[in-house]
Amino acid sequence: MSEASGDAGLPRVLIARAVEAALAEDLGTRGDITTDATVAADATAAATFGARRAGVIAGLAVAEAALHAVDSRVSFEALVHDGAAVEAGAVVARVSGPARALLTGERVALNFLSHMSGIATLTRRYVERIAGTRARIADTRKTTPGLRAFEKYAVRCGGGVNHRSGLHDAILIKDNHIVAAGGVEAAIRAARAHAGHMVKIEVEVGSLDELQAALRHPVDAVLLDNMDVTVLRQAVAMVGGRVTTEASGGVTLDSVRAIAETGVDLISVGALTHSAPILDLGLDFLP
Amino acid sequence: MSEASGDAGLPRVLIARAVEAALAEDLGTRGDITTDATVAADATAAATFGARRAGVIAGLAVAEAALHAVDSRVSFEALVHDGAAVEAGAVVARVSGPARALLTGERVALNFLSHMSGIATLTRRYVERIAGTRARIADTRKTTPGLRAFEKYAVRCGGGVNHRSGLHDAILIKDNHIVAAGGVEAAIRAARAHAGHMVKIEVEVGSLDELQAALRHPVDAVLLDNMDVTVLRQAVAMVGGRVTTEASGGVTLDSVRAIAETGVDLISVGALTHSAPILDLGLDFLP
Amino acid sequence: MSEASGDAGLPRVLIARAVEAALAEDLGTRGDITTDATVAADATAAATFGARRAGVIAGLAVAEAALHAVDSRVSFEALVHDGAAVEAGAVVARVSGPARALLTGERVALNFLSHMSGIATLTRRYVERIAGTRARIADTRKTTPGLRAFEKYAVRCGGGVNHRSGLHDAILIKDNHIVAAGGVEAAIRAARAHAGHMVKIEVEVGSLDELQAALRHPVDAVLLDNMDVTVLRQAVAMVGGRVTTEASGGVTLDSVRAIAETGVDLISVGALTHSAPILDLGLDFLP
Amino acid sequence: MSEASGDAGLPRVLIARAVEAALAEDLGTRGDITTDATVAADATAAATFGARRAGVIAGLAVAEAALHAVDSRVSFEALVHDGAAVEAGAVVARVSGPARALLTGERVALNFLSHMSGIATLTRRYVERIAGTRARIADTRKTTPGLRAFEKYAVRCGGGVNHRSGLHDAILIKDNHIVAAGGVEAAIRAARAHAGHMVKIEVEVGSLDELQAALRHPVDAVLLDNMDVTVLRQAVAMVGGRVTTEASGGVTLDSVRAIAETGVDLISVGALTHSAPILDLGLDFLP
Amino acid sequence: MSEASGDAGLPRVLIARAVEAALAEDLGTRGDITTDATVAADATAAATFGARRAGVIAGLAVAEAALHAVDSRVSFEALVHDGAAVEAGAVVARVSGPARALLTGERVALNFLSHMSGIATLTRRYVERIAGTRARIADTRKTTPGLRAFEKYAVRCGGGVNHRSGLHDAILIKDNHIVAAGGVEAAIRAARAHAGHMVKIEVEVGSLDELQAALRHPVDAVLLDNMDVTVLRQAVAMVGGRVTTEASGGVTLDSVRAIAETGVDLISVGALTHSAPILDLGLDFLP
Amino acid sequence: MSEASGDAGLPRVLIARAVEAALAEDLGTRGDITTDATVAADATAAATFGARRAGVIAGLAVAEAALHAVDSRVSFEALVHDGAAVEAGAVVARVSGPARALLTGERVALNFLSHMSGIATLTRRYVERIAGTRARIADTRKTTPGLRAFEKYAVRCGGGVNHRSGLHDAILIKDNHIVAAGGVEAAIRAARAHAGHMVKIEVEVGSLDELQAALRHPVDAVLLDNMDVTVLRQAVAMVGGRVTTEASGGVTLDSVRAIAETGVDLISVGALTHSAPILDLGLDFLP
Repeated sequence: MSEASGDAGLPRVLIARAVEAALAEDLGTRGDITTDATVAADATAAATFGARRAGVIAGLAVAEAALHAVDSRVSFEALVHDGAAVEAGAVVARVSGPARALLTGERVALNFLSHMSGIATLTRRYVERIAGTRARIADTRKTTPGLRAFEKYAVRCGGGVNHRSGLHDAILIKDNHIVAAGGVEAAIRAARAHAGHMVKIEVEVGSLDELQAALRHPVDAVLLDNMDVTVLRQAVAMVGGRVTTEASGGVTLDSVRAIAETGVDLISVGALTHSAPILDLGLDFLP
Repeated sequence: MSEASGDAGLPRVLIARAVEAALAEDLGTRGDITTDATVAADATAAATFGARRAGVIAGLAVAEAALHAVDSRVSFEALVHDGAAVEAGAVVARVSGPARALLTGERVALNFLSHMSGIATLTRRYVERIAGTRARIADTRKTTPGLRAFEKYAVRCGGGVNHRSGLHDAILIKDNHIVAAGGVEAAIRAARAHAGHMVKIEVEVGSLDELQAALRHPVDAVLLDNMDVTVLRQAVAMVGGRVTTEASGGVTLDSVRAIAETGVDLISVGALTHSAPILDLGLDFLP
Repeated sequence: MSEASGDAGLPRVLIARAVEAALAEDLGTRGDITTDATVAADATAAATFGARRAGVIAGLAVAEAALHAVDSRVSFEALVHDGAAVEAGAVVARVSGPARALLTGERVALNFLSHMSGIATLTRRYVERIAGTRARIADTRKTTPGLRAFEKYAVRCGGGVNHRSGLHDAILIKDNHIVAAGGVEAAIRAARAHAGHMVKIEVEVGSLDELQAALRHPVDAVLLDNMDVTVLRQAVAMVGGRVTTEASGGVTLDSVRAIAETGVDLISVGALTHSAPILDLGLDFLP
Repeated sequence: MSEASGDAGLPRVLIARAVEAALAEDLGTRGDITTDATVAADATAAATFGARRAGVIAGLAVAEAALHAVDSRVSFEALVHDGAAVEAGAVVARVSGPARALLTGERVALNFLSHMSGIATLTRRYVERIAGTRARIADTRKTTPGLRAFEKYAVRCGGGVNHRSGLHDAILIKDNHIVAAGGVEAAIRAARAHAGHMVKIEVEVGSLDELQAALRHPVDAVLLDNMDVTVLRQAVAMVGGRVTTEASGGVTLDSVRAIAETGVDLISVGALTHSAPILDLGLDFLP
Repeated sequence: MSEASGDAGLPRVLIARAVEAALAEDLGTRGDITTDATVAADATAAATFGARRAGVIAGLAVAEAALHAVDSRVSFEALVHDGAAVEAGAVVARVSGPARALLTGERVALNFLSHMSGIATLTRRYVERIAGTRARIADTRKTTPGLRAFEKYAVRCGGGVNHRSGLHDAILIKDNHIVAAGGVEAAIRAARAHAGHMVKIEVEVGSLDELQAALRHPVDAVLLDNMDVTVLRQAVAMVGGRVTTEASGGVTLDSVRAIAETGVDLISVGALTHSAPILDLGLDFLP
Repeated sequence: MSEASGDAGLPRVLIARAVEAALAEDLGTRGDITTDATVAADATAAATFGARRAGVIAGLAVAEAALHAVDSRVSFEALVHDGAAVEAGAVVARVSGPARALLTGERVALNFLSHMSGIATLTRRYVERIAGTRARIADTRKTTPGLRAFEKYAVRCGGGVNHRSGLHDAILIKDNHIVAAGGVEAAIRAARAHAGHMVKIEVEVGSLDELQAALRHPVDAVLLDNMDVTVLRQAVAMVGGRVTTEASGGVTLDSVRAIAETGVDLISVGALTHSAPILDLGLDFLP
């Protein structure tokens, strides 16, 4: 049941669509003109996906799907599970099959795998920085358009937790909503009336005063936005465990531990999905 | 005709599809439950897209399309062109219209704009590092799946040039192709026979010996892969201007100028599209 | 902010897709051969959407979109809001424009409007039956494939509340999950560890013993499945307001009030979306 | 060649698309979070689809496709054919495979199967009511948007016959068409000239006078709209077997036999597809 | 109500999809690199669509849609209706707007217009050859994949009539069906039982004996396949006006009149849609 | 590596999409009503695809995909490769499987195969006419909307070469571009600055003067438009092998050899894809 057990939570229909779109943009209407010209149709090959740097792997099932979409005869054997931390030089999967298919599908497979592994790797670094605290690292809606399912899955592979999936599955009341509703109480009451019983409500606050106002009403979580560590600690004390506390705003690998030590439950980090560099992976053909 | 003149080269049909997909993943089947609960249907608002950091803007037309897809009554006025370098604090666009639409579409619009501007900004930094040399900065096929058109457009906004769009529009013969074809000569001959007259051929070489072998045959460009600066300079001399020279492999902001000064025509940088952090932009509602 | 204020929570991208699919199946590759044969291309007409029976209206924006998709020159004026209760004979919208478009789009527009209004109407009947109790009427995932957004929206128009949107946005632990996890405690602990902080957890229980076991763990709601009214009342007492209580199973218009009077918070009714007859509406052409 | 022989007339491409859409709305971007949290990835299970009430089964191939789309390793064995009448308690199919897949796909499979079986069951009830008469029960275009193929297939499973598939495949001249064309003769002549030789023409009439007018022209069928039984009998006599006669309007299980006994060829019933309650089916996991 | 009155029978949703697909394959992910490089973004232009050869026009609305999909500011004014016969040199439409859009959309617009006009033109030639006879020219299912709606519309523009739209809307019993069913009588009886009352049945016969056998059963039309003119005439006499007679097989412009003079009702010509050369049209920019 | 080795360059994702679209338009929502009525669900059959005329085969993989999409149990054995020249009467593939699937998929399979083979056949005729010259036959962008990948593949099967795939992958500067840019030099300079290093540039010229002007600038190819043979020969001499020469405009089977003998490198023929009649192929069922 750990995230490492495969592609749990990444629906197959989404994988199929995303892989098809990625292949379509790479192959155009003409296909892989280099490989078709230089590699015999009946040539076979074997290769390994290898990590050039240490990191956390995510997206093996997507890479497999990409190669299968090029040619269903490709065989793909994962040597680690998604979520595994690997060293530089580690082999993460073995593939074999038609040489053309491996060469043609290589880049799309790697683009998914290295993007998702980059996110998992950065997430893991944040998670490790706060080891021993009660805090968890969460993602945001600041994801790359079209890839939210894949990126939030990668965050889970890295050991992070997902914030809401989108605007549709949880309520997060921000300052503009409060202004529009005519105050925090009116906003929370409207949200409570509007939302079903399975929907949680979080309110963003920027000061202890705003926090105090929000806590007077039935909310599930408070988003402590852009508070410094001192204020955060006071906020956590003020909440006193009654609701979930989430810190956000300007979190870095350098600042995250001090934030975690304030006692907040969650630290959300937009950079996990909007600014993670890839994990460098490559496909090495066996002689 | 400069890239700053709009969204040249970014087909409207692609924008429409990508925006729809991004909205679909954010809105699910339930829409923006926070905004619907707290903001009156007939409320209007005005806001500005502002840069939190200095950088280069790309994707204004996509941000506009995202807001229009939520509600066609939104008015969007760009204050700069794509490709413009802006300071931290700069306002890049003004929007107004139904308050719900602005709040609901904000994140999707920003996710496109900040991702694309991040790529444009990183590209510009590379471009500026090599100012005064003959080299140009090029992208690669190491793009985020599904977003190639948007990312390659952003590279152009940053002042870079595009390498091939995909496997379909130019030939790039790599080591595996050469092995499969039975040598560099056979590979080039096969490529030449296979490709139409409007298709260019580039060969990847890893040493001066391989370069010398490749130059015996009619190719349009050589990819000088992972050569150090000394060897690159020798390679450029060996080519003598007969074909386009491209350096690649491990290029960083620190190393790029030295590489450019070897006299190569192009320096391709995968990081432009696979590892650029976003440019931080936000939507500020006017009181 | 009432549901009557329009199509809040029904994303435009979903409306556009659903309308296109419905028109495609009605028009095939040949279009409306009757209308094309018998009505002049330049003929115009005006008509009214009228209710043949009393009921609650839902889907006006979808009906409008259907007619617009046939011909963008059609003018559509809604006379009531979604959520309005109307009498038999009431006119709910006026349309005018090219006669061909009105005739060609009529059935698709009515199919959406009468299906959605049927759900809203049945929901309202349940809601009215329990007036004065604390209970609310909720829907389920037993929806018509492909139309969940539309049907859950219609439930809201009828005065009901939405249960979770799908498998993705809330946790509902049923008997098979408990068995698979090795007991209710293990299941809840796994769910709590797996879910993000914005996800609520509900556990289905079939007896007071199971309820007691579930309440020992941190859950947000309990689904009291197929309990008779006496047991339900005991269950509500046992919960004592600590978590949300939901009754489900075999609820009918006859039995719903007694269930509501047990003090449960929610009564979920699959029939709202899987067995509601349409509300009979028609399009009447003006002479 | 009986309808019970499988999914004849339900194109596989339509099944695949509809199943994908239904899974997409249930799984969102996050998948089945309950099952992923509580059921081991390698757990297997077996279960049976059972009828809670007596009825007619339709949609087994769609249910199978839904489970396969979740995980291609699921095994599905139908124990009856579509079109079979089953008793309450009957097992209609056995499934086995990964436990997660069965739990995740259960609802989508059931939503198709119970919706389609509900239509087949209601159709069968109408068909049985008129046993021994010459009349047949027909559906209409009043179908649930996006599901016409599935619903008309279910009608056939129930023993009914399909009216036209859409606006595109047959001509049905209604009052508005007659007015627009300038009379019934002009309308029929225009239709005859417009339609290919493989297209049938039916004219709707509301009185014996209109029927008499219509019969003066070459039509294939007449739709006797909202006539009472006495008038219907006169209409049938007036037609004298020259064209197909169809009765429609306000047909119920109570009134259908009397209508059939007037001698009409067809009785079309919108309720078959717009107001049939589901047939209650469930998935029972084997211990 | 003549076919010349516009795009009757060509659903807008189909036009939009087909135009988008055609633009996508022409523009790829990079757009029109020639025009973007050489034409200023704010340049405007005007141009005319002109016929290089005499012919019949079809597809003006599709050409318009193609240009609008590139840039909604393009203005399109048709000077003739679809179905109009024009001389070489005739101007059929005037367009104006952004110069880039006209240049970028030109080829897609022309590809639709010239393909469809080519079919209309060839159809008209057949129609004219048989002027004065009772026969009409019909198309077949031998259409270009994906373009059936467009091609059958073009046949109507040319003055032909449409045979069935596809396998779904009419029954055509061929030799293999007769063998599989166990004889012509069994096949017709099965078809009659299977088909709804709005579906016509045609039987293909290859000899007078087969025709005689078929006529013993209730069919709507007979397809007289590959009969010479003498036999055709006998067949027509044998039918005696009881059912529609269709001749098919090896029909050419040279042979069609003689076939028509046998008295058949219809002559179906696969070449209309599978082998019509385009009508040469061009876009001429005004100085 | 010859084009005859299969479906190189025709991406599987495109085949799947095109086949699905073609089946959808043929099957509608009702499927193959003739076959479903007359052929038993468990009947099997075997058949051969045969050429009625001599020609060149293209599209076997597409035909196979069409039959598989109807029923995955169909077995398909190609007896020749795409690109093979066959005699009238030749059998090109054997199929077997469910009789219904073969009958239902027959027409879609044949429509692809005969359309693509028609293009390959016409291409081969042009190629044979110029045997012994240095010229090659090229296609254009004048393709059937939606089928460019299939048609350009067929041209390769016929022995032709592909011109650019679309507006996106190569630059072709025509007269309107030159005017808009302010002269041929400005146009070429802008194109060179705009295009990446992997993009070739061709300039269209209509006279020797224009050719001379174009040759002063760095272009890869010149398109000699509508020149007579005498002028073409002078143009080839003027070019002197420095760039690729392409002749276009009014090329016919009668004129092509004389054009080829002028020494041009390429002769582009729009008719290959816009006006090729099909190659007549049929499916013959084995007794």
